[in-house]
Amino acid sequence: MQNFTKFGKKIVAICRNFSEHAKELGNAVPTSPTFFLKPTTSYLLSGGKLEIPKGCIVHHEVELGVVIGKDGRDIRKSEAMNYVEGYALGIDMTARNLQEVAKKKGLPWSTSKGFDTFTPIGEFIPKSEIKDPHNVDLWLKLNEEIKQNGTTKDMIFDIPTLIEHVSSIMKLEKGDLILTGTPSGVGPIHPGQVITAGLNVNDKNLSTIKFPVVERVGLFEYKL
Amino acid sequence: MQNFTKFGKKIVAICRNFSEHAKELGNAVPTSPTFFLKPTTSYLLSGGKLEIPKGCIVHHEVELGVVIGKDGRDIRKSEAMNYVEGYALGIDMTARNLQEVAKKKGLPWSTSKGFDTFTPIGEFIPKSEIKDPHNVDLWLKLNEEIKQNGTTKDMIFDIPTLIEHVSSIMKLEKGDLILTGTPSGVGPIHPGQVITAGLNVNDKNLSTIKFPVVERVGLFEYKL
Ligand SMILES: [Mg+2]
Ligand SMILES: [Mg+2]
Ligand SMILES: [Mg+2]
Repeated sequence: MQNFTKFGKKIVAICRNFSEHAKELGNAVPTSPTFFLKPTTSYLLSGGKLEIPKGCIVHHEVELGVVIGKDGRDIRKSEAMNYVEGYALGIDMTARNLQEVAKKKGLPWSTSKGFDTFTPIGEFIPKSEIKDPHNVDLWLKLNEEIKQNGTTKDMIFDIPTLIEHVSSIMKLEKGDLILTGTPSGVGPIHPGQVITAGLNVNDKNLSTIKFPVVERVGLFEYKL
Repeated sequence: MQNFTKFGKKIVAICRNFSEHAKELGNAVPTSPTFFLKPTTSYLLSGGKLEIPKGCIVHHEVELGVVIGKDGRDIRKSEAMNYVEGYALGIDMTARNLQEVAKKKGLPWSTSKGFDTFTPIGEFIPKSEIKDPHNVDLWLKLNEEIKQNGTTKDMIFDIPTLIEHVSSIMKLEKGDLILTGTPSGVGPIHPGQVITAGLNVNDKNLSTIKFPVVERVGLFEYKL
């Protein structure tokens, strides 16, 4: 499953799954899980560069990714962990100014969440290496400054609940990724900075990712 | 490319690309293309049944699908048709009551657009069979009653413009589908009905799809 980023078809990203993060953006804490889709073309693998599209204010959201190991629909909570093959550290990059406009106008989030390189992703971590996915520390630095430092203990909806909910709407397939939401501390990132994120269990680091940030070259430019 | 539904990873669906349809839902006519993502798990192929999730008011939107033939990013309008391998008739099924709530709350459209079976799709049509994709008739019937009867002449943004816009945000890959928006006449569909849709060029039918409509059995139920 090392190469789930190559054959997986879906990235399902949960929003507002940490109450401190919901509050920092002025959002209501939800009563059921809410999610959106990111395209797999947004994966950014080791060795690449994180691209900031022109005119976009881009925020980092460090998250635990859950890698699905077999196909399932209407998966019950009690069975859900049997569908998990492993984990990966991910960052759900978000063009916050575009997302704010979309939210106000009632439009989809797909552009603000879906640019190429907007899902930096770490190596596949086999399930056996994380005994309790609800006790994982997630951290993120811009250059040398810590910006996010949270724990999956604070998730509002746990992983079995997320799998049951998503699979009651859309079939999950081997290689799909569920991003489980970000803890608080999100903020903007700029070309010239370096973004580093890590996933620790009991103070042991299991995954680190590091990417230089550049301006996206190309046709896209957001103008108010 | 007959099996683009098997290996393709993205369905990019354009919204409000026909002004009569934008008006019928009370939406502003857009000044640039807007899109959302549907999961490929939502494809419904010949022989299947269209499922209506409990508590959902589900609308039909008949659309011309464009099948991408090679990978590209920042594809210019002038080159865009070289990336088109063919076409397919599609229906962008929408849980309209869930979408209305999402729009009011500024939440993503992924649930309302993403249920299993929510993208009924016809056979691959090679590019050579449709000389002018901007002169294609699209029609849809519920049982024997015609509900939609439009032409791609009325698109606000043409196919090259859509390809340039989407690929300036997210890379397009071989097998991806772009649904180009629906003409007016959308409306609800209920278990027990039969939905039939067709794609005609100069009064010649190139594709017809037909599906029985059933209630979705499973865990999902929408309650206000
Ligand atoms: Mg997808
Ligand atoms: Mg997120
Ligand atoms: Mg549509």
